[in-house]
Amino acid sequence: MPIAPVADTLPRSAPDVDLIEPDLALAGELFDSLRAFSFDGVGITRDTYGAGEQRAHDLMRDTALRLGLEVTTDAALNLYLTLPGRDRTRPVVMTGSHLDSVPRGGNFDGAAGVVAGLAALSGWLKAGRRPTADVTVMGIRAEESAWFPVSYIGSKAAFGLLPPAALDVPRLNTERPLIDYLTDNGADVDAIRAGKAHLDPARIDCFVELHIEQGPVLVEAGDQVGVVTGICGSLRYRDGRIVGQYAHSGATPSTHRRDAVVGMATLICQLQQDWATMEAEGHELNLTFGRMFTDHAQADFSKVSGRVDFTIDVRSRFPATLQVMDRYIQAAKAQVEARWGVRVDLGQPSGSTPAAMDDGLRKILFDTAVARGLRVRDMPSGAGHDSATFANLGVPTAMLFVRNAHGSHNPDEAMDMADFAEGARLVSALLATRAGA
Amino acid sequence: MPIAPVADTLPRSAPDVDLIEPDLALAGELFDSLRAFSFDGVGITRDTYGAGEQRAHDLMRDTALRLGLEVTTDAALNLYLTLPGRDRTRPVVMTGSHLDSVPRGGNFDGAAGVVAGLAALSGWLKAGRRPTADVTVMGIRAEESAWFPVSYIGSKAAFGLLPPAALDVPRLNTERPLIDYLTDNGADVDAIRAGKAHLDPARIDCFVELHIEQGPVLVEAGDQVGVVTGICGSLRYRDGRIVGQYAHSGATPSTHRRDAVVGMATLICQLQQDWATMEAEGHELNLTFGRMFTDHAQADFSKVSGRVDFTIDVRSRFPATLQVMDRYIQAAKAQVEARWGVRVDLGQPSGSTPAAMDDGLRKILFDTAVARGLRVRDMPSGAGHDSATFANLGVPTAMLFVRNAHGSHNPDEAMDMADFAEGARLVSALLATRAGA
Repeated sequence: MPIAPVADTLPRSAPDVDLIEPDLALAGELFDSLRAFSFDGVGITRDTYGAGEQRAHDLMRDTALRLGLEVTTDAALNLYLTLPGRDRTRPVVMTGSHLDSVPRGGNFDGAAGVVAGLAALSGWLKAGRRPTADVTVMGIRAEESAWFPVSYIGSKAAFGLLPPAALDVPRLNTERPLIDYLTDNGADVDAIRAGKAHLDPARIDCFVELHIEQGPVLVEAGDQVGVVTGICGSLRYRDGRIVGQYAHSGATPSTHRRDAVVGMATLICQLQQDWATMEAEGHELNLTFGRMFTDHAQADFSKVSGRVDFTIDVRSRFPATLQVMDRYIQAAKAQVEARWGVRVDLGQPSGSTPAAMDDGLRKILFDTAVARGLRVRDMPSGAGHDSATFANLGVPTAMLFVRNAHGSHNPDEAMDMADFAEGARLVSALLATRAGA
Repeated sequence: MPIAPVADTLPRSAPDVDLIEPDLALAGELFDSLRAFSFDGVGITRDTYGAGEQRAHDLMRDTALRLGLEVTTDAALNLYLTLPGRDRTRPVVMTGSHLDSVPRGGNFDGAAGVVAGLAALSGWLKAGRRPTADVTVMGIRAEESAWFPVSYIGSKAAFGLLPPAALDVPRLNTERPLIDYLTDNGADVDAIRAGKAHLDPARIDCFVELHIEQGPVLVEAGDQVGVVTGICGSLRYRDGRIVGQYAHSGATPSTHRRDAVVGMATLICQLQQDWATMEAEGHELNLTFGRMFTDHAQADFSKVSGRVDFTIDVRSRFPATLQVMDRYIQAAKAQVEARWGVRVDLGQPSGSTPAAMDDGLRKILFDTAVARGLRVRDMPSGAGHDSATFANLGVPTAMLFVRNAHGSHNPDEAMDMADFAEGARLVSALLATRAGA
């Protein structure tokens, strides 16, 4: 069995980077404005290709115009806010993140990366600095698959890589297809369908994305920022089902049951054990059964259940690790079927490819953090991010996580502005180093 | 740990019973009529205190009047169809079952016991036989808790024992309380509330209930009928909940999770193992997690789940066995909480008392079956039945199961009419023996 490499640590040295203070006052105003128009009564809602996301794009566009940046959009309405460099033939240095949110989510997930980019450029302008290469802050569309269950719609479309079939995918709570929302917003659907690219990987020097951490690692370790080692890919079974046989709970002895609930429990317990085994062997992965339910109409407290639906989500930075877990899943399926007389249908697998982060960029971020006296750590990103699109197209890519309590995708996100300021400084420093500001 | 007694076998001897052939033509007509007006497009629906149950009561009442039987009802609209005996001071000999069904159920569950009783009395009348004691066929109301989640509404009310709080229990799919349905049908709600009894245990010689088997035991063993040794009581946790913490599936390492789904799976696997241990030790019981579900609105394939709801149903003929399993449940709860950092709320337990069947009546049924060359076995009833109400009030009680494929509570019930005929003959013989026909 192949063993996954453990998170590697790069050699460290004193950084030779240029620290231009970002415009933190602007950052604070942008977060306040975003919160004010995105609050839904419970949390923050910026619906993908809906009014919520559009208001965020309008805010960033207006801010950029006020700062004197160049503003463009592409066919899919991604937003590009550019501080022109002295040598516009040079590959562009890019930063940014997405501006949509899950329903009832938090204010920082995604938006913090765009705000950090604008704060950096505003800081440079205030300091009278001008880069050699163009520096572009990208406001990416449609990253949250809570609305349309497709990964990286905005960043894929920017490179002309959105599969045309994605246009017909219905929004989860309205059943209207993506194409209708694109058309409503004035997107160039024909160009998207034709795979017309706005971005060319060869013309991009690098991409860096600041994002709140979505898990508890930094908070619990007392670290302020994390430098991402790689973005996990995934293996997903979204439509799993165990089929047994409904039977009277009182009248059906243990010997005569085909209990879907017991089959489900056995599958989970077995794979939980396999996960622990893999971790003990050095593999790095997460395994989650996020949804699991008996049939609402047919199940009853006094019936052995004939059906359980479930989902499996496996994430790892290493394709080989995803494959090892998939073999465990197949073995557990066979074992459950043989032991309990049920049928385990995993359904069609889906997933995404892991993405490695650029060692040079990681080193700049890490060393600058150390030089500033920050508590910093290397860590994988278990969640997917648009950075994976850039990295998998060969663009040198980095991600910086900022400490954040209570996870993301909920109203309780809690990023300290002092931590955000440090993150924005690191992004500013990286952009300045690469763009020659 | 107390060991439950194994199902005992009574001494057998040649029976001295009177076999009067039941009116099987009438039985066939009654089943056909019931099916004709109860078919809902998928299965059989005779809704408790609704139009479906009422039509079944009307059919039995009209049939009894045509046969010349005495017809009465009580405050809760249970139906009593009586062939008067020569000595009306003697305790009455009773048979019967319920006439309601679950939604989309089968035609035989419940109704077969009333049809068998009427077929027996019609057979006696055709044979010119008259019993010494009154013989009453009871059409019981509201046995299926699929409508109102209360056990034995009809039979409890007949003895004046329905808890007044039951009147306010809402019907599961309409939310209207039981009292509204009773009133609509003309029941005497004041008498029910006052606990006015129509039946007096001391005035009942015995009660026998014919019912289809609801499990696969008779079919698989090749036996035609089963003589019930006892009716299981139950221990139920209808409102179990495991509370963990929602978290991002990619960003939350195994060490930082409080996963309600994993807690649920562990609880089920542990108790499944404890059940096997108890059975190996001679305990007789069933354990079922019939419903189990993550929260529809909050759970997602990419989230660690913070909540799972579940039900537990434990059944046994032996109160001590229910207590042993309850101790295992409490131990598993504590273990899951400690292991996974989740909270396991079992909610309020509910349940019913096991009921022993009368040895003398069992012996008559068994010996008569053997004398007729039938394949017969002793077996517990895992399901609850109105017979438990009679038995627990001290009325000598017996139940006879008739072989039936595909379980009950579904449209695929399959009782062979030849098996029913043998069951009706045994009931007729038992009634004749006790009533002196």
